[in-house]
Amino acid sequence: MITIQNYYGIVEDAVIHKLYNISKKLINKRVVHINSTYVGGGVAEMLSTFIPLMNDIGVDMEWRIQYGVPDFFAITKKFHNALQGDSISLSEIKRKVYLLSNERFSTFTRLPHDLIIIHDPQPLPLINYYVKKQPWIWRCHIDLSHPNKELWNYLKKFILKYDLVIVSHPNYIQKDLPINYKIINPAINPLSTKNMDLSSKEIESVLQKYNIPTDKKLITQISRFDKWKDPEGVIDLFKIVKQKCKECRLVLCGSMATDDPEGIEIYKRVQKKASSLIESGDIILITVENNYLVNALQRASSVIIQKSIKEGFGLTVTEALWKGKAVVASNVGGIPLQITDGVSGYLLDPYDIDGFADRIVHLLQNESTANKFGIAGKEHVRKNFLMTRLLLDYMNLMNDMF
Amino acid sequence: MITIQNYYGIVEDAVIHKLYNISKKLINKRVVHINSTYVGGGVAEMLSTFIPLMNDIGVDMEWRIQYGVPDFFAITKKFHNALQGDSISLSEIKRKVYLLSNERFSTFTRLPHDLIIIHDPQPLPLINYYVKKQPWIWRCHIDLSHPNKELWNYLKKFILKYDLVIVSHPNYIQKDLPINYKIINPAINPLSTKNMDLSSKEIESVLQKYNIPTDKKLITQISRFDKWKDPEGVIDLFKIVKQKCKECRLVLCGSMATDDPEGIEIYKRVQKKASSLIESGDIILITVENNYLVNALQRASSVIIQKSIKEGFGLTVTEALWKGKAVVASNVGGIPLQITDGVSGYLLDPYDIDGFADRIVHLLQNESTANKFGIAGKEHVRKNFLMTRLLLDYMNLMNDMF
Repeated sequence: MITIQNYYGIVEDAVIHKLYNISKKLINKRVVHINSTYVGGGVAEMLSTFIPLMNDIGVDMEWRIQYGVPDFFAITKKFHNALQGDSISLSEIKRKVYLLSNERFSTFTRLPHDLIIIHDPQPLPLINYYVKKQPWIWRCHIDLSHPNKELWNYLKKFILKYDLVIVSHPNYIQKDLPINYKIINPAINPLSTKNMDLSSKEIESVLQKYNIPTDKKLITQISRFDKWKDPEGVIDLFKIVKQKCKECRLVLCGSMATDDPEGIEIYKRVQKKASSLIESGDIILITVENNYLVNALQRASSVIIQKSIKEGFGLTVTEALWKGKAVVASNVGGIPLQITDGVSGYLLDPYDIDGFADRIVHLLQNESTANKFGIAGKEHVRKNFLMTRLLLDYMNLMNDMF
Repeated sequence: MITIQNYYGIVEDAVIHKLYNISKKLINKRVVHINSTYVGGGVAEMLSTFIPLMNDIGVDMEWRIQYGVPDFFAITKKFHNALQGDSISLSEIKRKVYLLSNERFSTFTRLPHDLIIIHDPQPLPLINYYVKKQPWIWRCHIDLSHPNKELWNYLKKFILKYDLVIVSHPNYIQKDLPINYKIINPAINPLSTKNMDLSSKEIESVLQKYNIPTDKKLITQISRFDKWKDPEGVIDLFKIVKQKCKECRLVLCGSMATDDPEGIEIYKRVQKKASSLIESGDIILITVENNYLVNALQRASSVIIQKSIKEGFGLTVTEALWKGKAVVASNVGGIPLQITDGVSGYLLDPYDIDGFADRIVHLLQNESTANKFGIAGKEHVRKNFLMTRLLLDYMNLMNDMF
C-alpha cells in the first residue's frame, strides 16, 4: 500500500512527522475529489497517489469519477482548449450535453462531505445540482491566463458558487472573478513507476524491448500528442539540430488520454511531417502507455525538451529535473517556476525554434553544463515539487477552511 | 431527467403505479452499485438508466466506478473470457494486480450503505478490503455455465463472502457454491436513443450519413468485435447466403468497450476475411459508437443475426425484437428465453453455419413470416424484458433483504 513512510530518506524526517501530525480540526472531516478520469493525464496520475496518501495520514478523503458519455468528453475537451485561448462555438447543444451529464451524475452520487474539491471544467456545473451544505473548491489545472471570453463568461456563473478557486500560477488569476484564490503548484511522486530509481541495466533492458537504440545521444519530449505541446514544432527544431550535430536522435513519446479524442489526428500530422527522419531511424515516435518506459527514456536522454505553447504547470519538466536532466523548455505556464534560465536548464520563447536548437546543441556538446543543470534542478524539485509538499499545502488549506 | 412517468403508454398503468408505490422497508435505505465502467458494454448501458430510475422511484441508489490501471483491465478481460470457459495462466502477477487495484480503490471509497451490489469479476475482491457491515450481492452478467476451474476456485474464495449471487440464467448456477442464488434477466430501456421510435425519414437520414445503401435488403449483427460474438463465423455464413440470395448486404456494427483491449485484433481478422466482399460493398463494417445509428440499422434491416458462441443474456437480441424484427440467433445463454424457435425467430446451434444461412434466406424470401415473428417477439419483450420489469425485480429483492 501507498504510505508516507516510504518517503523516508527521500525527504527530511521533519516533513514526514509533520504530515502524520494531524490537527484536531481535520479529524472526522470528510473530503471528496471529483474529476473526469482515473487514468490518462497528469491530474489523474497525481490524484492516484495523493488521495491514498491523505488517507494514510488520517484524512478521510474519497475520490469519485464523473459520469459522461463520449459526446460529453468531446465537448469538454473543446472547453479545455478554449480555456487556454482557443475559439469555440458555444452552441445550445454543447451546453445541454455538458449540463445533462452533470445532472445525471448527481442523481446517483451523494455528497455528504465536509469539503468538495472539483477538478477542471468537466464537473464544474455539478454544484448546481446539489443543495450547498459545505465549502466547494474548484481546482483548475489549466493555463487560465487568456481564456476564451465567451466560454469564461458562461462558466463564471458556476464558478461564482464556489468558495475558493485553486490554480497553479499567479498569472491564471482572472481579475473579473471576485473569489478567493489560492495558488498550489502540483507535484510528482518520486516512488511511482515513472519516477523511481532505475539501474542502468534496467534502463538498457526496457529501451531494448522497445527498439530504442542508444548508440547516438537521445533528445526526448514526453508529452501527449496535443497541439499545446507542439510536437510538430519539435520536429522542425530537430531538423536544425541535426544540421549541427549528426550523432543524436529525437524521441517523441506520448500517451493518449481517454478524454482526448484529438490526439490521434495530431499524431498523424506529426508522422507525416517526420516521415523521412522516421524512416532513417533518427526520429522515434512512441504512443505506448508505459510509465516504466517513460522513466527509462528520461534517464537515458542527454537533453529533455518541453516545447509547449501553453502549459498548466508542466509535470513532465518536474519529472525530467528529478532525474537530474538538463531541460530546454518554453518559458510558459509553470515551467519558469521550475527552471532558472542558465542555472537549471534553458528557457525560451515557445516560437523561438532556432533558440531551442542552439541550446540543445550546446548541451549535447557540453556535458558538464548539462550535469550541473541536472544537479541544481533535482534539488529544486526535492524542496518544492514532491508529493509531500502538495500534501502539506492541502493540510494547511483544510486547516484554514474548517 | 429520466423518470418512470416517461413509460406511460409503453407499459400498463398498473406497472407505473406499482413502481412508485415504495414500501416502508426501502425508505432511508442506501444502496450502491459498483462496476468497472460508465460507458461501453451492456452492463454500463443498463445501469445508466436503471440507477437514475431507482432514484426517481425514491430508492437512494448510488453508482461508483472502480479504479483500475490499464494492466488491471487487460487481466480482468482475461478473467471474463476464462469465466466463459477459456484457459488462463493464473500467474502470481495477475492475482497481485487484480487485488492491488481493488485495495487501492478501497482506500478512497467509503461504503456506508445498507446494501452493496458488485457487478462482474472486476470489483469482486473488494469485499476483502472492508469490514462487512451489510449484505453484499455479486451480480454476474457473464455466462457461467462452464467456467475455467482454476479461476473459479480462486474467485470462489471471494464469492463465499457474499450474501447472494445474481445470474441471468439457471444454467449459470454452480453446484459447488453453497450460496443463495437469484435469477434476474436484464432488460432494455425502450426510451433510450438506441431503442426509441424513429420515423422512416430519420432512419433514412442516419443511414445516408454513414453511407449505408438501402437498395438491397440488410442483414445485420450488432455486437462488439469479440470472439464470443463470432463475427468471423458471420462472414462465413453470409458467403453461403449470398449464393442463394444476391440482393442483400451484411452489416457488422460493433462498438469497442473501454475495458476490451482484444477488440481491435479481432476486428482486423474480420476485415481480412471479408476483404473482397467489403470492396464490392456487400459487407459493411462499422465501429462508430453511436446508439442512434444502431437503432436505425436494426429498424432498416430485414433480418437480424446474433451468432454468439457464448452469451450472458443477449441484450442486442432484446433490442432487435423490440423493433419487431425477425432474429436468427444461437441457442445459447439467455437467447432461448427471448426467442421461441419458429414462433418469434429461429434458434440454431452456434456452429451450424448452413442452418443459419438457410433460415436467413427463408426469412428474406418470406416477408410475412418475418413480420409475424417480429410482432410476437415485440410483445414478449414488452411483458418480460423492459426496464420496468427489472426495477420491479430489484424492488422485490430488496424488500426481501431488508
